[in-house]
Amino acid sequence: MIVTVTPNLALDVTYELPELRPGHEHHVRAVHGRAGGKGINVARVLRSLGQDVLVLGLAGGATGDAVRADLDGAGLAHDLVPCAGETRRTVTVVADGEATLLREPGPVVGPDEWAALEARIPDADVLVVSGSLPTGVDAAALAGLVARLSARGRPVIVDTSGDALRRAAPYAWAVKPNAEELAAVTGTDDPVVGALMLRSRAVVVSLGAEGLLAVTGDQVHRVPPPRVVTGNPTGAGDAVVAALAAGAGTPWPELLRDAAALSAAAVLAPVAGSFDSAAYEGFRTCLSSPPER
Amino acid sequence: MIVTVTPNLALDVTYELPELRPGHEHHVRAVHGRAGGKGINVARVLRSLGQDVLVLGLAGGATGDAVRADLDGAGLAHDLVPCAGETRRTVTVVADGEATLLREPGPVVGPDEWAALEARIPDADVLVVSGSLPTGVDAAALAGLVARLSARGRPVIVDTSGDALRRAAPYAWAVKPNAEELAAVTGTDDPVVGALMLRSRAVVVSLGAEGLLAVTGDQVHRVPPPRVVTGNPTGAGDAVVAALAAGAGTPWPELLRDAAALSAAAVLAPVAGSFDSAAYEGFRTCLSSPPER
Repeated sequence: MIVTVTPNLALDVTYELPELRPGHEHHVRAVHGRAGGKGINVARVLRSLGQDVLVLGLAGGATGDAVRADLDGAGLAHDLVPCAGETRRTVTVVADGEATLLREPGPVVGPDEWAALEARIPDADVLVVSGSLPTGVDAAALAGLVARLSARGRPVIVDTSGDALRRAAPYAWAVKPNAEELAAVTGTDDPVVGALMLRSRAVVVSLGAEGLLAVTGDQVHRVPPPRVVTGNPTGAGDAVVAALAAGAGTPWPELLRDAAALSAAAVLAPVAGSFDSAAYEGFRTCLSSPPER
Repeated sequence: MIVTVTPNLALDVTYELPELRPGHEHHVRAVHGRAGGKGINVARVLRSLGQDVLVLGLAGGATGDAVRADLDGAGLAHDLVPCAGETRRTVTVVADGEATLLREPGPVVGPDEWAALEARIPDADVLVVSGSLPTGVDAAALAGLVARLSARGRPVIVDTSGDALRRAAPYAWAVKPNAEELAAVTGTDDPVVGALMLRSRAVVVSLGAEGLLAVTGDQVHRVPPPRVVTGNPTGAGDAVVAALAAGAGTPWPELLRDAAALSAAAVLAPVAGSFDSAAYEGFRTCLSSPPER
């Protein structure tokens, strides 16, 4: 079983409007809501891959209930710890081909709630901790959690940013920043140098059109994208994390090719947490064929 | 006891932002949510007046639960019939001194749900039906409800607009359109002519800065506002309805003066459903003193 922990989950709500005019009244044409947060996207991808996956996180208030209901509807197993604050919503207003995001601040999470979340994390083959931290939980608290989870002897994959990434990296089996997140936390634009500075056992960097880079110990692996894909880049990084979790233990060159194929297939899908499965198979095949020399 | 029925209740959510830029990402600074819909505003005012009041409506999904929780928190008695659809939210984005409204469409209400709501309406001294109709409920359904409630022998006050107003008016004890709503449904800008066309026992028209007009049978009553007040006009009409409900049976001139005082005091309060109680007492006194001749 793979467990994904989403410390700061959300209900992602989409409003469709003909146009958005500040200062005016609008009748929303259609409303869509789904459970969101990077760990939930990772779990959706893992489930589509046929993996046994459990979603963990903190959920509070009516919006927390809506997250639970959506996970139930999607058939995703979950164990969400109740918290006193109301789970945040992320409202995306789609109007005139343009997206306007309104991110609620989310609940303040207390030390007891954070401890309750940790106490609920079961033993798993692989653990994933994905996304931002809620207000009230600092980078040291995340690093402590990752250290204790790693001490259980199973791979822990962390996908976060900023100080939380920097502090947790030495305790994780793998971290997966993108190029901007890595540069922001290390101060260098060279991803290999940045990856070494993070001192994680493995640093997998998503480089967009340049594919994936993994620095594992003193080895550097690179894999190009299967082909240039255009589409929805949201969720491409979550697909990389899902591939790493599903394939943990596979030799890095093969694991990285699989992650690049799944990530490109996610870009072709309309929403984060899904991927184009036919494209995924095709991309895996073309990345596995021997390179031309 | 006064019962207020809100056929299309909502959760009114306010997002505070520094500025709203279409096409960009925003971190919401503060989120406020409260139960909304005209019948709920009427109930809030009645409760502040010391009346025994019960809130009825249809509520579904997590947002329906949030409405229930807010009513509990406000100490407002309620009996909300569950419906399959999710209760709507009305999001007001307040940025740069400007309000941008995003109104969700709300649930589609089926005939069984509408019948269940009617079955739950208890006998009351006064019944209020306020606000718009949900999708799936037409003007004829409202008119039928108002006719059956009126047959119980107690005053029924209806505050709605459009065809629903036109069809329900003949069965109500009183209706309370504003000047625009009355003109829209009768096609005349003369509020006395329009009021007569509605064929209700009493038509109370809120005329903004010109005060209130009531046409009851063949009598026309007018009351000016106590003084020119500026503030928040949202909820001024709901205060008029609350005053009519609380004072039903009082002779019209006195009832109308009270409604004008309460409405002006509501304009001075920051949110719909509240009023400035000191101003209310003062306005009542000045409107009750004999007119100068």
